[in-house]
Amino acid sequence: MSNVYDKAHELARALQESPEAKAIEEAMKAIDANEESKSMLANFRQRQVELQQQMMAGEMPPPEEMENMQKLFEVISMNPDMAALFEAEQRLAVIIQDVNKIVTDSLGHIYQ
Amino acid sequence: MSNVYDKAHELARALQESPEAKAIEEAMKAIDANEESKSMLANFRQRQVELQQQMMAGEMPPPEEMENMQKLFEVISMNPDMAALFEAEQRLAVIIQDVNKIVTDSLGHIYQ
Repeated sequence: MSNVYDKAHELARALQESPEAKAIEEAMKAIDANEESKSMLANFRQRQVELQQQMMAGEMPPPEEMENMQKLFEVISMNPDMAALFEAEQRLAVIIQDVNKIVTDSLGHIYQ
Repeated sequence: MSNVYDKAHELARALQESPEAKAIEEAMKAIDANEESKSMLANFRQRQVELQQQMMAGEMPPPEEMENMQKLFEVISMNPDMAALFEAEQRLAVIIQDVNKIVTDSLGHIYQ
């Protein structure tokens, strides 16, 4: 069992050292160094969290709000650091999804 | 990045080989070998899934139904194979929760 925890820590380290994580760190450093970028991102994240909470509560946000978020995303993505951040986050999200599938599939086999 | 996938597969293997996974496999073999146990478990799982779907849709199942499930759980846990299965599943669930926390925390650090 301790082996599982060892492997989980090794996986966590590999994720932290992945090119995607490094790209996110780099982009965040650049964004944090610029007050305007920093508050633009904070505002975007805040609205993102609110939308997610709404959807998790089973409510569908109005289409205008979704369109506004999409537009806001496009506008702030014109900033190269922001674009690099979002791109790296998307790549990392795919990797995490894959990792979850690998682990979940392995557990599915127990029942067969 | 390939390192992340290697580590995910190593973690999956460690989970499959854990005492908890082995206990689940053993218990499932014994339950599957007995028609009555098998259908009792299938029925319990079916009702469990229905309740979970209801709750995920934001509906709270009536308290009587929750009590019935609790009673059903207690009754079928009198079967030693079923008790072994549920116990191992609970231990495995804790491990998976820990693994998720280890991975999630490591990603949180990227942003600091």
